Amino acid sequence: MKITHVNNELNLSHIQHRVQLRGWVSKSRRMGGMIFIDIRDRFGITQLTVDQHSAAYEQALLLRQEFVIHVSGIVVERQSKNPSLKTGEIEVQIDQLTIINTSETPPMLVLDETDALENTRLTYRYLDLRRPIQQNFLMMRSNITQTIRKVLVQEGFYELETPILGKSTPEGARDFLVPSRLYEQQFYALPQSPQIFKQLYMVAGFEKYFQIARCFRDEDLRADRQLEFTQVDIEASFVDQEDVIALIENIMTTLFLEILNVSIQTPFLRMPYDQAILTYGSDKPDMRFDLELKTLEATYKNNESPLLSLDHQAYILIDRVITRKEIDMLTETYKKHGGHILSYAKKEEDSFSGPLTKHFSNEQLQQLLSKNNDMIILATGSFNQVYEPLGAVRQQLGKILDLITPQTYKFLWVVDFPLFEYSEEDGRLYARHHPFTSPKNEDEMINQPLTAKANAYDIVLNGYEIGGGSIRIFKQELQQKMFEMLGLKKEEIVNRFGFFTEALKYGTPHGGIALGLDRLIMLMTNTENIKDVIAFPKTQSARDMMMDAPSTVDEKQLEEIHIKVKL
Amino acid sequence: MKITHVNNELNLSHIQHRVQLRGWVSKSRRMGGMIFIDIRDRFGITQLTVDQHSAAYEQALLLRQEFVIHVSGIVVERQSKNPSLKTGEIEVQIDQLTIINTSETPPMLVLDETDALENTRLTYRYLDLRRPIQQNFLMMRSNITQTIRKVLVQEGFYELETPILGKSTPEGARDFLVPSRLYEQQFYALPQSPQIFKQLYMVAGFEKYFQIARCFRDEDLRADRQLEFTQVDIEASFVDQEDVIALIENIMTTLFLEILNVSIQTPFLRMPYDQAILTYGSDKPDMRFDLELKTLEATYKNNESPLLSLDHQAYILIDRVITRKEIDMLTETYKKHGGHILSYAKKEEDSFSGPLTKHFSNEQLQQLLSKNNDMIILATGSFNQVYEPLGAVRQQLGKILDLITPQTYKFLWVVDFPLFEYSEEDGRLYARHHPFTSPKNEDEMINQPLTAKANAYDIVLNGYEIGGGSIRIFKQELQQKMFEMLGLKKEEIVNRFGFFTEALKYGTPHGGIALGLDRLIMLMTNTENIKDVIAFPKTQSARDMMMDAPSTVDEKQLEEIHIKVKL
Repeated sequence: MKITHVNNELNLSHIQHRVQLRGWVSKSRRMGGMIFIDIRDRFGITQLTVDQHSAAYEQALLLRQEFVIHVSGIVVERQSKNPSLKTGEIEVQIDQLTIINTSETPPMLVLDETDALENTRLTYRYLDLRRPIQQNFLMMRSNITQTIRKVLVQEGFYELETPILGKSTPEGARDFLVPSRLYEQQFYALPQSPQIFKQLYMVAGFEKYFQIARCFRDEDLRADRQLEFTQVDIEASFVDQEDVIALIENIMTTLFLEILNVSIQTPFLRMPYDQAILTYGSDKPDMRFDLELKTLEATYKNNESPLLSLDHQAYILIDRVITRKEIDMLTETYKKHGGHILSYAKKEEDSFSGPLTKHFSNEQLQQLLSKNNDMIILATGSFNQVYEPLGAVRQQLGKILDLITPQTYKFLWVVDFPLFEYSEEDGRLYARHHPFTSPKNEDEMINQPLTAKANAYDIVLNGYEIGGGSIRIFKQELQQKMFEMLGLKKEEIVNRFGFFTEALKYGTPHGGIALGLDRLIMLMTNTENIKDVIAFPKTQSARDMMMDAPSTVDEKQLEEIHIKVKL
Repeated sequence: MKITHVNNELNLSHIQHRVQLRGWVSKSRRMGGMIFIDIRDRFGITQLTVDQHSAAYEQALLLRQEFVIHVSGIVVERQSKNPSLKTGEIEVQIDQLTIINTSETPPMLVLDETDALENTRLTYRYLDLRRPIQQNFLMMRSNITQTIRKVLVQEGFYELETPILGKSTPEGARDFLVPSRLYEQQFYALPQSPQIFKQLYMVAGFEKYFQIARCFRDEDLRADRQLEFTQVDIEASFVDQEDVIALIENIMTTLFLEILNVSIQTPFLRMPYDQAILTYGSDKPDMRFDLELKTLEATYKNNESPLLSLDHQAYILIDRVITRKEIDMLTETYKKHGGHILSYAKKEEDSFSGPLTKHFSNEQLQQLLSKNNDMIILATGSFNQVYEPLGAVRQQLGKILDLITPQTYKFLWVVDFPLFEYSEEDGRLYARHHPFTSPKNEDEMINQPLTAKANAYDIVLNGYEIGGGSIRIFKQELQQKMFEMLGLKKEEIVNRFGFFTEALKYGTPHGGIALGLDRLIMLMTNTENIKDVIAFPKTQSARDMMMDAPSTVDEKQLEEIHIKVKL
């Protein structure tokens, strides 16, 4: 049973045509002697009508939600048009109707405005995915992926695969392990990223690699994290930071133009890491609004004030007085991000008020609050207690003050990242990006590791990091030195990374980047839940509700792979 | 240091141009006062020359194999041209040379004709992949994949992802298991194929799905099998066998034309399974040559002959007498494939000879061997001892008789597969394709399962199965019945497939196919080793030689996932 059209095609130009359609019954209702049916497919919805005298009437009486049907009929103009529907000017008077399959009554409304709880939606994901909004998310996902791929192929990149069953090299997140059947007491590991393999492709002379790669991290989930996720993984030989940036700007501008019809200006804004922290309290600032953090000048320091005598003070000046309740919300956010003391002062009808007023002279308040309805929100404490927590306050203020225009896209490159970060807890250095990132200066790396900068760059969109990359170390000695700086013992280096340092004896300069595809799609589809853009996601507690995975397995299966569960 | 050309570009049209090149030193040799260098990149090789008076001479003396260099020089015509090289008409007289990186002496020759053993090649895979032939395999892989994708996108298919961390539903091959950290004693499983997920996409109304999907089977490896492999996974709603066949023929003709410049005729040859077995002794016959199996007519039966009294006899007639040694090779192949008795007779200079002669009358021999140098090779035994073993003999005879023209591509659809096969060992039916394949006739499925046919089809190229698919069951009751026919208990059906039978309460008709991408690429690149077309393959004993995986892991990692190794 073939069709002449899909369900978003018919309009006034088809009046009096005989058409054949197919799809799912979205709605079916009797009114007087007529039956009205909304038929849905992945393209859209068409309204069908059946009158009492139609040969299809008896069949139409049987229809229930989600039945799969095929119909034939004549296109006519609708009396009451529906402008929200692409086919809203017409309806199809049907005279043939075949029920391809019946359906049980679904346990949830298959409509964009469903009333189902998330757990129900995930358990019956195959019904949830019938909702037009969900279909659109995943079709956009397919289109976005194809567009990215198109640009990369045009630029001479080869799409090359890397193994999923690899070796456990824990340095960063936790690995998923896969017990080996042929080798007792041995395990494969799922890749946290194809990082090492893509670097080996560069050693192997492929020069330009990309892959839409599945990655795995056994970490606790957050709203925008999943156990498995997809990244656009890119690496090229003989490149510097500018080459990578130009490529990604090409991808992004093409993507936003072709998918969203939005024109993005290049070059993107660029900012060193230190400036991002000092000015926006974040290494991924949302550039859709200003609200800069200002460091309180030294002249305001006051040894007698418990606030102004602390090491660091920074504030945000706004030109609207916000409510007590809003201040409480900001304070909660500030504390949640590790802030110490948040305080404020404001000027209304030429007088100052707020807890901060007693820490400043009247003259100082005049300088800080020059106009009526000015307000400052000030954070004080150690560096880490001030800047990043105040950055979170800034983000919330952006929403409270309604500074974010919907459907705007502000890209930013954050560059000049620190090479290392120091963990007080473990008493050792960690690589800020990863251990394969090259230092801007090798002497600095060795002698002043805490201030050494890396050839690393992140791309940020609307306050989300959507990708990060670096120019890599390509000489064996330097890689060896890097591992040593990270506190790895010689033996560990050999066991875990021996094959890789060996490969660098034949090294080639290279660099690259990885884009978080799920997150990018989330931003491009304007949703805030990463599960919306993944067809079969895990819950925040790492379960697949639909399949009910993970699950127990037969004892025989465990015996074959030589493991026992711990009771 | 930018370049003006890559290493397959320069020819006589560039004479006297100044060019800049980059690449790896493939060869470097001194002759008289000159140094000749072959520089290699992913595109090709260019010959460089440096004379004693060149500013680059001192540097050039330092060059060793696989150094990475950047050069600048003038293109000149070569005196002795090299027609096997795209740049063989010119050479570049260089006057600037920068060593980008040195290299250790590689442990293997980085040339197509390497002398390295496979284990060495896999251990130093990043050097092995520098060999032009290997680079070509993987670049073709990228191009083949893009072309397949292009056709599918043109045909309205969406590329949709499916999870890697799923549920263990062992029915067929062995699953790889991944212990869960959050759920003690529970396991995820890696997918053997996205079969169930793609069917759920159809339930969800996506209508046309594809994915270049990684699949995993924990089975013992053969020359053309890997633990993980890639398939082009395709599914569509409302389709029949003809729709799927037309789509795949479109993909294949486009692919062979665009990648190999070979024009393939459509429609492809088509043959029922039964005919393939009877005529070619194989469900994946190599159609590049004829050599049909002939069933010995009943009139030749002879109760007094130990050969001709057995249940089945089939033979191959050839028009050349082969040697005793070749017959021994055929017999070995025949036995290896489960054959019982293989015998032969031949006619030379008007007289018959060979062990078979004593089982036939002279008149019968005249009929069977009508010309001088005719020879018959006859298999006898049970059905299974005759047809498939003789099919293996046929394949070998094709080589012995040199019947296979290189670079020819003969496609074949094998259709009308049996729905089930019966395992004597387990005393139960197994699905010939998989348990989701629909029967041609539901009554037959239930009442005559051993002869019931399936809506299943395989695509065969040059004797290799490169894909298989079916029209699926889409109604819950029939799927339930199928599981019961396979001997699954009600409880097992619920535990393993409950979510899937639940989904079929909302079913949509659909069907699809999966193509074995690795094998297809192997055939298109004319190699016989599947490892050649996989960048980082496992050995036949399931190891990654380069990474040395699988490997032992820290006790702490096992504790976190609540398992112990069995000692």
